[in-house]
Amino acid sequence: MIKPLGDRVVIEALEKEEVTKSGIVLPDTVKEKPQEGKIVAVGTGKVLDNGQRIALDVKAGDKVIFSKYAGTEVKIDGKEYLILSERDILAIVE
Amino acid sequence: MIKPLGDRVVIEALEKEEVTKSGIVLPDTVKEKPQEGKIVAVGTGKVLDNGQRIALDVKAGDKVIFSKYAGTEVKIDGKEYLILSERDILAIVE
Amino acid sequence: MIKPLGDRVVIEALEKEEVTKSGIVLPDTVKEKPQEGKIVAVGTGKVLDNGQRIALDVKAGDKVIFSKYAGTEVKIDGKEYLILSERDILAIVE
Amino acid sequence: MIKPLGDRVVIEALEKEEVTKSGIVLPDTVKEKPQEGKIVAVGTGKVLDNGQRIALDVKAGDKVIFSKYAGTEVKIDGKEYLILSERDILAIVE
Amino acid sequence: MIKPLGDRVVIEALEKEEVTKSGIVLPDTVKEKPQEGKIVAVGTGKVLDNGQRIALDVKAGDKVIFSKYAGTEVKIDGKEYLILSERDILAIVE
Amino acid sequence: MIKPLGDRVVIEALEKEEVTKSGIVLPDTVKEKPQEGKIVAVGTGKVLDNGQRIALDVKAGDKVIFSKYAGTEVKIDGKEYLILSERDILAIVE
Amino acid sequence: MIKPLGDRVVIEALEKEEVTKSGIVLPDTVKEKPQEGKIVAVGTGKVLDNGQRIALDVKAGDKVIFSKYAGTEVKIDGKEYLILSERDILAIVE
Repeated sequence: MIKPLGDRVVIEALEKEEVTKSGIVLPDTVKEKPQEGKIVAVGTGKVLDNGQRIALDVKAGDKVIFSKYAGTEVKIDGKEYLILSERDILAIVE
Repeated sequence: MIKPLGDRVVIEALEKEEVTKSGIVLPDTVKEKPQEGKIVAVGTGKVLDNGQRIALDVKAGDKVIFSKYAGTEVKIDGKEYLILSERDILAIVE
Repeated sequence: MIKPLGDRVVIEALEKEEVTKSGIVLPDTVKEKPQEGKIVAVGTGKVLDNGQRIALDVKAGDKVIFSKYAGTEVKIDGKEYLILSERDILAIVE
Repeated sequence: MIKPLGDRVVIEALEKEEVTKSGIVLPDTVKEKPQEGKIVAVGTGKVLDNGQRIALDVKAGDKVIFSKYAGTEVKIDGKEYLILSERDILAIVE
Repeated sequence: MIKPLGDRVVIEALEKEEVTKSGIVLPDTVKEKPQEGKIVAVGTGKVLDNGQRIALDVKAGDKVIFSKYAGTEVKIDGKEYLILSERDILAIVE
Repeated sequence: MIKPLGDRVVIEALEKEEVTKSGIVLPDTVKEKPQEGKIVAVGTGKVLDNGQRIALDVKAGDKVIFSKYAGTEVKIDGKEYLILSERDILAIVE
Repeated sequence: MIKPLGDRVVIEALEKEEVTKSGIVLPDTVKEKPQEGKIVAVGTGKVLDNGQRIALDVKAGDKVIFSKYAGTEVKIDGKEYLILSERDILAIVE
């Protein structure tokens, strides 16, 4: 199990099958980095300057849109995840 | 449905038909990026250093002017939106 | 009507007829950008870190000097305005 | 009349007649920018993060030393002034 | 014994035997820097702006994932450790 | 008299006669900038974000070591001084 | 005697005799800058934004590891010391 620290979340990126308008499936290196993902785990929140800990606005299971290229890619048990700060999450998609 | 986080808003850009003085309609790549849009959804507000959450000054439906190139373009259900922070909104137009 | 957000103001720049010492009227592209203007509208003020909102020190109608190149130019109903933050206003001229 | 905003002051630069050691009076473009001036007007002070407004430590009439190149030059009624922040004033000379 | 200061931790990097897909064991200079490690010692925590000291969220013995290239390598009693700030730790792996 | 503002101090640099190991006295342009000086005057202290003014830890007469190249050189009554912030003073030498 | 200001400390670097694996003693210019030292004197601590002064976590006599290249080298009574901020000290070695 992976427990992100502070205001970080662990995200499983949602790959879209990328087909160009001319119908060609793009190989992996040409595809844009995914901007959507599902939250797998959330941290306990950031500590403010007054010592108060602020819970995150997202929770495990949320489908989110995040900034391209944000965060750090990690591989856990052979599976790739992205760890990023809540401030790099733009919105929840419902 | 899309729910922006923190002080972010989702904006639907208002395209203006761009006609130069000589009467030529400009193709898409030459047009300036839109500076006006309609707010579609707003976040729950930014958390201050004292833990207080500040509601946004704009609301869904507001027509706003925003900084060129600010924010991130996203496509939801085939439609393009812009997600940006409230601080990139310059003014409400009524 | 245009309502600037936060500590922003809307300014109508005051153009001076620019005549060089040798008496030649300069065309528009050579003139310096105006540094003076009249405030048309003011925001509701900036929110401090303690949640308090601070009203602006300037009001509609004030003639002000502002930093060259500060702010964003917008066109509303065919007329050009400048939207800038109060911190870019140097002084009120009376 | 000119009323600077916040922690800004309006300064009238004190020109020194600049004579090099070899006795040649330097033309204007070669002289160093003045570092001394007399305060003509002061702002109402900066607002701290707790909402408190702090009066300036300088007042109109003070002769001050300020950082070279700091501030913005403005011309009011044909006379040149410098508008700068109090933090660019190094010391009061008495 | 080594006692890190503030919000710093001492980490013993966990080396993975790095074998490429073609089966060749990579020499040390080609391997990626380790991203996983075990915490050996933690500081007493960072002092906030209000004077409060915040204990760390990690403890000695925790297996953690940290940002590549973060921190400073030190050698104590001939053994290599990494000293880094808690903010460079992304997550605890359990 | 010169009264520095805020957390600034006025320093009279202590020149050391600089003799190289080979016995040659170095001309002025080759010598390192002095790092030691005597405090001539101190400001009334910096105002914190809570409005409290903090008196300086140094006083007139203190012999101090300061960061090379820090501060601004000024000439008062034909004598050279250095005005710098207290944060550029490293230590008091007794 | 030397009294560092604020959160600064005076450190006496601990030189290690540097012998390469092939047995050659390296001359001074090739050796790495020392990363270990003994604290000779500590400041009275940093003043927080709320006016509170925070004592340092290190004391004279502590053997510490510090960031390479941090701080300023000074020579007092012919002996070389390093003055650096407590935040550049990574850990205490006991």
